[in-house]
Amino acid sequence: MVRFAKGHGTRNDFVLLTDEHDQQPLSAADVRHLADRRGGIGGDGVLRAVRGRHIEGWSGDPDLWFMDYRNADGSVAEMCGNGVRVFAHYLREQGLVPEDADHIDIGTRAGLRTAWIVGDGRVRVAMGRVQAPHETVCVSLEDQSWDAAPVDVGNPHAVVLLPTTDSVAALDLSVSPRWEPADAFPYGVNVEFVAPHGDHRIRMRVYERGVGETESCGTGTVAAARATANAAGERDGVWTVEVPGGEVEVAFVGDEAWLTGPAVIVAHGDMEWPVASERREEEGND
Amino acid sequence: MVRFAKGHGTRNDFVLLTDEHDQQPLSAADVRHLADRRGGIGGDGVLRAVRGRHIEGWSGDPDLWFMDYRNADGSVAEMCGNGVRVFAHYLREQGLVPEDADHIDIGTRAGLRTAWIVGDGRVRVAMGRVQAPHETVCVSLEDQSWDAAPVDVGNPHAVVLLPTTDSVAALDLSVSPRWEPADAFPYGVNVEFVAPHGDHRIRMRVYERGVGETESCGTGTVAAARATANAAGERDGVWTVEVPGGEVEVAFVGDEAWLTGPAVIVAHGDMEWPVASERREEEGND
Repeated sequence: MVRFAKGHGTRNDFVLLTDEHDQQPLSAADVRHLADRRGGIGGDGVLRAVRGRHIEGWSGDPDLWFMDYRNADGSVAEMCGNGVRVFAHYLREQGLVPEDADHIDIGTRAGLRTAWIVGDGRVRVAMGRVQAPHETVCVSLEDQSWDAAPVDVGNPHAVVLLPTTDSVAALDLSVSPRWEPADAFPYGVNVEFVAPHGDHRIRMRVYERGVGETESCGTGTVAAARATANAAGERDGVWTVEVPGGEVEVAFVGDEAWLTGPAVIVAHGDMEWPVASERREEEGND
Repeated sequence: MVRFAKGHGTRNDFVLLTDEHDQQPLSAADVRHLADRRGGIGGDGVLRAVRGRHIEGWSGDPDLWFMDYRNADGSVAEMCGNGVRVFAHYLREQGLVPEDADHIDIGTRAGLRTAWIVGDGRVRVAMGRVQAPHETVCVSLEDQSWDAAPVDVGNPHAVVLLPTTDSVAALDLSVSPRWEPADAFPYGVNVEFVAPHGDHRIRMRVYERGVGETESCGTGTVAAARATANAAGERDGVWTVEVPGGEVEVAFVGDEAWLTGPAVIVAHGDMEWPVASERREEEGND
């Protein structure tokens, strides 16, 4: 049997496991089974807590908890702004880090991340440096086009600033946005559509590259707040970002950003193990 | 905390709870939360095990386990061919019925159902009487039309027999089929598209009314097998039905049908309770 938790941050959801000594490395089939919403537990990804020493290529503190993040399709992923909040919350509630720790350092494939449990079930994560060059790109959706601000939050974003939340709500994001020049984002781009919704408050929808519209994208909220702040001529500041899955807060000091948002552990459970490898054997016998 | 299980039958999935003495009646908001794939556990529906005596309108044996079946949107549902298999499996593995019982009687809003655990994780359920009148209806999908056989399995079905599995695979079921005459199914109809795939073996895709294409529909497999058998001039017999979510077996003796298929309990867990009512209070305070 394997013990798991299920949790989400602004409805970006995960299956979480602890494997301190790397005794149950996850095959792609294992991950797909865990993330399978009908035949397994279900989630956008799987977060395995393992000590850094067991992760090939991790050159940081070997005693740190490492977030072994995997996409639902089994592929390895570097980082996830919502995932790292849920992961930090999980480490705390599982007693894997001291109750009174001021902050929690977490190893990820994108490097060290630091998280703070700030109360009300919310977690703050240092997102590192945000880069927003001055030039714009052109983003199109069906027969509409807009100037968009490119923002790099470790991954690429293009932010379209719209005048009203109604114009954001009216967009059809069942189709993928296009952009020009094409070589601006050789590996694709996440596109955010944003409108003001009060003082230092914006509302956003996001089309994630390779996924489609999602209810939340952690790095996307940082990009959206950065582009909005830049358009307002503000550098440091705190912005509230409403996404379909909830609400987060983005703070800027200089080039650095912090993302604060909810992290919920919904349930804990047990499932048989190793399910996926058993299935593989069965499939092999067919 | 509430103890739950998650399970599926041919990938039609459910959250299962035991509430023998009806101490935690489920509000629609509770059900929506449990069935929420991102913010809760996730499933096509929720199956609560409660003694029949607590169910208003149940006139059968008050000591029977009743399957209080709810759709994911919180609405009450009568029956579910896949759900009742998973429910029977759950009653057995939870020790709620004797280990050596030959069969398990289950109360449902559509009446008494009897299930047999037949091994290999499969469960057989008596589906009751199947009615297939001789007249046909016309079913259309985009610019194609076919004669279809109406079949009543307690709920209404229209079965289109196609020549090859390729023609079934090629259909675009992202749009709803239409039918004529319109008054043939005043409350809508589930439409099955079926092709032969070996001796007494058929492959099927289904468009469930009010839902869209699904990976499985228990009563739909019975309807598909009945229409195919009738077209072949056969009355009694056993048919294997392949659906996208797996494979089931349908047996006919006279007007009666039995459905045998897999029932899997994937995981057991605990979640906080009452989550939904807490959320309602919070919403009220906003």
